[in-house]
Amino acid sequence: MAQEYLDMDTIKYLLYDVHGLNELLAYERFQDHDMESLGLFIDSVKEFADRELFPYFKEMDEHPAYHKEGTVIVHKQVDVMMKKGGEMGLIAAPFDYEHGGLQLPAMAYTTAAYILDAANNHLPGYAGLTLGSAELIVHFANEELNATYVPKMLAGEWGGTMCLTEPQAGSSLSDITTKAIPTDEGYYKISGQKIFISGGDTQYAENIVHLVLARIEGAPAGTKGISLFVVPKNRPNADGSLQYNDVMTVADFQKMGQRGYCTTHLGFGDKDDCRGWLVGEPHQGLKYMFLMMNGARIAVGRGAAAIAMAAYQASLEYANERPQGRKLTSTGKKNPDENQSLIIEHPDVRRMLLLQKAIAEASLSLVLLASRYQDIKQATNDESERNKYHLLLEMIIPIVKTYPSEAGAVAVNNGLQVLGGYGFCSDFILQQYYRDIRISAIYEGTTGIQSQDLLGRKITMENGKALALLAAEIRETMGTASAYDDLKPYAEKLGAKLTLSQEVLNFLMPFAKKGDYERYLADANLFMEFLSIVVIGWLWLDMAIKAKQRLLTGDMNYSEAFYESKIHTMKFYFRYELPKTTGLAESLMDPEALTVKTDKKVFV
Amino acid sequence: MAQEYLDMDTIKYLLYDVHGLNELLAYERFQDHDMESLGLFIDSVKEFADRELFPYFKEMDEHPAYHKEGTVIVHKQVDVMMKKGGEMGLIAAPFDYEHGGLQLPAMAYTTAAYILDAANNHLPGYAGLTLGSAELIVHFANEELNATYVPKMLAGEWGGTMCLTEPQAGSSLSDITTKAIPTDEGYYKISGQKIFISGGDTQYAENIVHLVLARIEGAPAGTKGISLFVVPKNRPNADGSLQYNDVMTVADFQKMGQRGYCTTHLGFGDKDDCRGWLVGEPHQGLKYMFLMMNGARIAVGRGAAAIAMAAYQASLEYANERPQGRKLTSTGKKNPDENQSLIIEHPDVRRMLLLQKAIAEASLSLVLLASRYQDIKQATNDESERNKYHLLLEMIIPIVKTYPSEAGAVAVNNGLQVLGGYGFCSDFILQQYYRDIRISAIYEGTTGIQSQDLLGRKITMENGKALALLAAEIRETMGTASAYDDLKPYAEKLGAKLTLSQEVLNFLMPFAKKGDYERYLADANLFMEFLSIVVIGWLWLDMAIKAKQRLLTGDMNYSEAFYESKIHTMKFYFRYELPKTTGLAESLMDPEALTVKTDKKVFV
Repeated sequence: MAQEYLDMDTIKYLLYDVHGLNELLAYERFQDHDMESLGLFIDSVKEFADRELFPYFKEMDEHPAYHKEGTVIVHKQVDVMMKKGGEMGLIAAPFDYEHGGLQLPAMAYTTAAYILDAANNHLPGYAGLTLGSAELIVHFANEELNATYVPKMLAGEWGGTMCLTEPQAGSSLSDITTKAIPTDEGYYKISGQKIFISGGDTQYAENIVHLVLARIEGAPAGTKGISLFVVPKNRPNADGSLQYNDVMTVADFQKMGQRGYCTTHLGFGDKDDCRGWLVGEPHQGLKYMFLMMNGARIAVGRGAAAIAMAAYQASLEYANERPQGRKLTSTGKKNPDENQSLIIEHPDVRRMLLLQKAIAEASLSLVLLASRYQDIKQATNDESERNKYHLLLEMIIPIVKTYPSEAGAVAVNNGLQVLGGYGFCSDFILQQYYRDIRISAIYEGTTGIQSQDLLGRKITMENGKALALLAAEIRETMGTASAYDDLKPYAEKLGAKLTLSQEVLNFLMPFAKKGDYERYLADANLFMEFLSIVVIGWLWLDMAIKAKQRLLTGDMNYSEAFYESKIHTMKFYFRYELPKTTGLAESLMDPEALTVKTDKKVFV
Repeated sequence: MAQEYLDMDTIKYLLYDVHGLNELLAYERFQDHDMESLGLFIDSVKEFADRELFPYFKEMDEHPAYHKEGTVIVHKQVDVMMKKGGEMGLIAAPFDYEHGGLQLPAMAYTTAAYILDAANNHLPGYAGLTLGSAELIVHFANEELNATYVPKMLAGEWGGTMCLTEPQAGSSLSDITTKAIPTDEGYYKISGQKIFISGGDTQYAENIVHLVLARIEGAPAGTKGISLFVVPKNRPNADGSLQYNDVMTVADFQKMGQRGYCTTHLGFGDKDDCRGWLVGEPHQGLKYMFLMMNGARIAVGRGAAAIAMAAYQASLEYANERPQGRKLTSTGKKNPDENQSLIIEHPDVRRMLLLQKAIAEASLSLVLLASRYQDIKQATNDESERNKYHLLLEMIIPIVKTYPSEAGAVAVNNGLQVLGGYGFCSDFILQQYYRDIRISAIYEGTTGIQSQDLLGRKITMENGKALALLAAEIRETMGTASAYDDLKPYAEKLGAKLTLSQEVLNFLMPFAKKGDYERYLADANLFMEFLSIVVIGWLWLDMAIKAKQRLLTGDMNYSEAFYESKIHTMKFYFRYELPKTTGLAESLMDPEALTVKTDKKVFV
């Protein structure tokens, strides 16, 4: 087991130097916070993660959650995560004061959750989904539902889940069939099956509050007929006592990774006694769910970014300690009389470590950027500013979900490879990160779905305004970089890629315009990879600028080497990752359609 | 669990139509075989794999091999694999008649082993390593050692292993310290520790014959002082009885995948009573080992190719059965009143399936090509022909080991993604393939080591002659393709890439010439990826030509759609994979050295 799972200096550098958390504190919403109180909060979370999360990471994998007699038995730290985490405000953090929250900036809350994810990615989801389902109630449900459920949820006493997926529908929510029959008593009778419900049941939860998508009898077909309900496992009686609400934990799903974070199959209304309470208006359920989906997607990206970082730390630690082989001499041979080198001295190992560093640190930067957009959007009183950050946020959300998930898995793969045979062995932790991170590209909309969202909705949003705003942000960073002689060439490289992205879109757009959406979106996945690489190049250029400025002014919170390493990693990214866009653009602008189904039989 | 793990038509197409197994039968060495007997052999192997391997695949993962009181307890099918496999000639197949072998072409033997790998990759290694260690004895050891060990090994009664790695040395064999002290009785006393020994012990093996690299007392340092020994677990007495030879199974390694294929830690001579017999001459051990290493490296590539194929079959089966979502209409929306589509109708799913098909089938083609080179090299009496195929084989070996391992893992990753959330669940088999294939990039020389071999040794071999021969083969295929109007553009694309590869080498060579080998090899990994993509493009073009010819002549063994699908997949490969070389070349020709260690601290 590795000693460390994080680089707190880099976290603080990104939070303060790069993304300017302090600037946010000028907004009225955050006026009760200051840099010192936020710093203390983050440090206390790290201390909590060190003590209560990280030490149990491996054993939660080795002793997964399991289904037994209608309930799911989880590790005891799940209870600690919920109750102590609740006490610490880890669920209440982003909520308004009036709902019992702390009004913490999303950037600070996200940093806290990232630390927890890096320490032990099997635990934070229990709190995170409770937060997410409480948000749905707070935003869309009536006061009674708020009063009944939210305080218990924010305290970590009751858990919460999101119940979307059904066996026959998968990602296609228009096909869900869970039924809600109105009654005269104000509640609905719920019946149906939901699968892949994370955190759906534990032996510790006094109650679990499910936010369930279902169809009210007679509702229109498709996504327009879906409503949202609060369906508790146990329904509170008038006297505060709890009564079983006919929500059955039918089974669980055993998984390749993240095995301590239970995934359940729930059955509602098997005995015709399952009551659900409508959230907001009928038939608006999917809209509500998706208004809250950004948070869930940032959370997945954040978790993947954190796993990539933890894996990087573990493989760096190994590379710094493991002697093996020797440097090549000028004859191309090795000299056996020399001492062995540490493997971190070999170029190929350095390449794998730099790749991990480039991906892991930029993924965190991306997640914090999204949180910053969220914060400004929420905190500003200026409508045009709100709209700008709303569009920027919408624009990058699919990338925030996808890049850390996909590139993060590549980073962990390289981390495993650094350890050679040991990387494949259960005694070392890399193989667990390798398995755990793999779910990220599936959770909350697969990479395929995110890519369709990016190219199909976000790029075309308000006639391309979201994309134009993003491009303007990138150009601004390029402008700043151009003022520094040694950064200018990188700004130019990035500019060329921005131009290339426009060429790609010019090639694709006519398909959409003539109504051939299938062809337009057929390579959305490649476009996602293409645009992600450009965006990450932008974030690295920005990190390099901020480092350069510190080096030039001498106003340094960290060592000179720390700032130099950021510039070095930017150069690495531009040399090894950015060129991939050239081939991707070549593929994207190839006129031949080979993946759209025709009469020709392809899979023979 | 999926129903099928192979596409026998494609195997036969590659074996007969593409790589012309029948042509090999003209060589005297193979004169006793004919197409019918080889076909029967392959079918009988498939039948054996269906019955004895595939049904146990999942349970061998769920109940891994484990160490208990000095032995390793493995699944009962290990015994079947060894004994029945031995009876069927699966170990003896490639050996000469005089050693009890069948003189089967490597192409046929490789096909058989590939079928076994695809059915259950946890089992064939037990036989494969027995074959490999018997080969070492046959080629380099004296008659007595041959007589004592080889017949029992080829029959599958005794297992065999290769003992190279030691805890302190890892991939750096020059640092091994296992000791061999000569005695007057002709044997050596062996003492030391070996780790990562695959198939090192089972409760079924009456004996296991270890081929051990060790240093004779007083031998020179480094690789020049390493000798090879036969060190049986139990030494045969003159009367044929067996006596324990002080080879202790100290522990095993629990792994992320391939959990039914045990990996052991062996201790030799703990009680000062471990006898070893020298193979061949002293200090030639590493040379002997590496003369036999090609076989081991082909075997790893073959195993990875087989896993990628089995995973493809499983995900194809799922995609053909799973309804979900709908096609996009001309408004870009979906019509909920329509029936659900099968997911195989969605372009992004088709892309993932075609990528798997492109990688899996080409990987097999590559492995068969290497076997063909082996066969001609071994069977020919013409020295210049032998030298040609020797060089071609050496040239492609690192790619044969690496491409199926690295691209195969990407293929399986896409296969898992096709299943969405189910892909991550233990009830579905994709997650097992995902874990199993990950070892391939580590076994028998990691991807880093293969890449150094490719760029450092193979490219420069005989002043570039091996590379020139390979380029000539590729150009010949391009020439043939150019005769067909619809294949000609692809031949031209491939030609451009061949030119680009020369540009890359022109850029890199000066570093080697001025003795800066570290810089020369720093990006060997990227060069491996680059050249692999070109080679696979060549193999796809070749497959498309052979399909085209069948379609034109009408002399078809399979459906028209079968041949069309090969051409379609070639086009897919050229549109989605070949362009990656552009970005790789950009990276490879970037003058900035960022991974070679300098005084600058990079990992801060």
